[in-house]
Amino acid sequence: MQTTEIYEPVVEQLARVEERLKSLVRVKFPLLSELLGHVYESSGKRVRPAITLLASNFHPHDSTKVEIMASAVELLHVATLIHDDTVDDSDFRRGKATISNLWGRNIAVLVGDYIFASSATFVCDTEHIGVIKRFSETIMELSSGELRELADSFNPNQTMESYYQRIYDKTASLFTTAGETGAILSGAPVDQSDALKEYSRELGMAFQIVDDILDFEGTPEEVGKPIGSDLAHGILTLPALIAMQMYPNDNPIPKFFVDRDDRDMLSTAVDMVQQPVVIDAAFAVAEERCSVSREALLSLPRNPSRDSLEELLNYVITRRN
Amino acid sequence: MQTTEIYEPVVEQLARVEERLKSLVRVKFPLLSELLGHVYESSGKRVRPAITLLASNFHPHDSTKVEIMASAVELLHVATLIHDDTVDDSDFRRGKATISNLWGRNIAVLVGDYIFASSATFVCDTEHIGVIKRFSETIMELSSGELRELADSFNPNQTMESYYQRIYDKTASLFTTAGETGAILSGAPVDQSDALKEYSRELGMAFQIVDDILDFEGTPEEVGKPIGSDLAHGILTLPALIAMQMYPNDNPIPKFFVDRDDRDMLSTAVDMVQQPVVIDAAFAVAEERCSVSREALLSLPRNPSRDSLEELLNYVITRRN
Repeated sequence: MQTTEIYEPVVEQLARVEERLKSLVRVKFPLLSELLGHVYESSGKRVRPAITLLASNFHPHDSTKVEIMASAVELLHVATLIHDDTVDDSDFRRGKATISNLWGRNIAVLVGDYIFASSATFVCDTEHIGVIKRFSETIMELSSGELRELADSFNPNQTMESYYQRIYDKTASLFTTAGETGAILSGAPVDQSDALKEYSRELGMAFQIVDDILDFEGTPEEVGKPIGSDLAHGILTLPALIAMQMYPNDNPIPKFFVDRDDRDMLSTAVDMVQQPVVIDAAFAVAEERCSVSREALLSLPRNPSRDSLEELLNYVITRRN
Repeated sequence: MQTTEIYEPVVEQLARVEERLKSLVRVKFPLLSELLGHVYESSGKRVRPAITLLASNFHPHDSTKVEIMASAVELLHVATLIHDDTVDDSDFRRGKATISNLWGRNIAVLVGDYIFASSATFVCDTEHIGVIKRFSETIMELSSGELRELADSFNPNQTMESYYQRIYDKTASLFTTAGETGAILSGAPVDQSDALKEYSRELGMAFQIVDDILDFEGTPEEVGKPIGSDLAHGILTLPALIAMQMYPNDNPIPKFFVDRDDRDMLSTAVDMVQQPVVIDAAFAVAEERCSVSREALLSLPRNPSRDSLEELLNYVITRRN
């Protein structure tokens, strides 16, 4: 199932979210309008705002505040992408040139700041202190996740726990906030918002694990970046950690981390991680996260939005990019 | 008068603000603790939080929320300094190595993001939606001010109006928020918070104009950076704009902007701006801003905090760094 089908129950709200995002482009300052226009052109599948909107559909409510929240969630995601591309020095994302590639890293830092601040300003319009606070904490988690990743790069002594903490911070935190705040702003009772929080957190963990697996799959043309680019940047993800556990002796990954110019060693390491036995083990972990997520979801009353959230789990685990 | 004397009426609150800032250093994540510790060591005079605290003293109130606000204001200032130093590629600030110099630009971008988010999280604890919203708008103004500065660099066709808009965004906006929110959180009536807002905005404008003048004064040892560094980076500030108005023909500034490698032309331009007739004219503008600020202040009842805010105006205009 494609995301367009999954988003069916919230298609009108999602269109209004899109409008809200575009309204930000209409600023007086020409360079900023141009930059923001470019950002939206190369933007993604709107998974996070869709979660907020779907999570709000278990309780009758006025949709406006939830739509504001969904817009803020997507803006925050866009801001982190801009800073991540700057920090990683990435030239392309989804086949489009990044802001740092086109306008330079300095502009990218500042336009990222502007979009961070815009997302926080949007959230204020929900007028819900708890939600606003949760949102700022999420920005702290996102940046500490990225900091951890950078601080731990080329460090071969990492635990699975530190990997899970890192992907919670850099990815699952915003998924969690997306789902939980949708529920809270719809006025859902605590047991429902807790269930949607758990659903979204586990979905976010699975999403990042699959992302980390996809980094080792396909061809550079399919995924829009080189195969094994995480490893090449010294970032240990789940498939690499599993391969290190499976082959504790004479493993090429720590060797490559010592001599980063040894491209043959990198290639040997990537080949090792790409083995079906490693990839399947990583997928099993993602599937386990999806099971926990699905279980949380099934405690909610069945309706078209719940069906969509369930389909989203299937989409996340089977997606190819 | 030194700032320590000026801060007399709020010395205890300021100490608690300092404690709050330091509490942020006690995070679980070692690299982040180290980075934050470094940031505070090289931090400045706490002018902005002092304004928040002094502005709250015209109405009896519980000091906690005002202290939280003052901490948030200072944190936001620190975050902008980190990103500015990264964008400007500055190696030193106040004689201390910058984060981007010691740990690299990537770490600096992410630790700046973390501190931005921490400041927003602090503000949430004021539980005042209007104040929280004003604060996020301030972050938008700060980043758009920096973006304008970068976008307009080496552009000789700038108006005084665009200069004032830019320094409002990058500096006076946060001063305004510092003063206005101190008043609002103390429960001051609207006429008083409006007066303190005007006081702080005009003080902030004067502060930045004096900063821009100081860039052309003293020796590199005194100011900790080369003389005329703004102009060398293609940034037109008030003294340069005045010099361009005074000498419309054959002016070295536009010539240097065309050929940025011509260090002799830069030196001629700096000499032109350093003339007393130019510097005095720029000071007169700063003094005019201080007069407007003082007038707003004098509509408030006299007390030790009002005297301090008045002294702060004298300090801003006579400071040498």
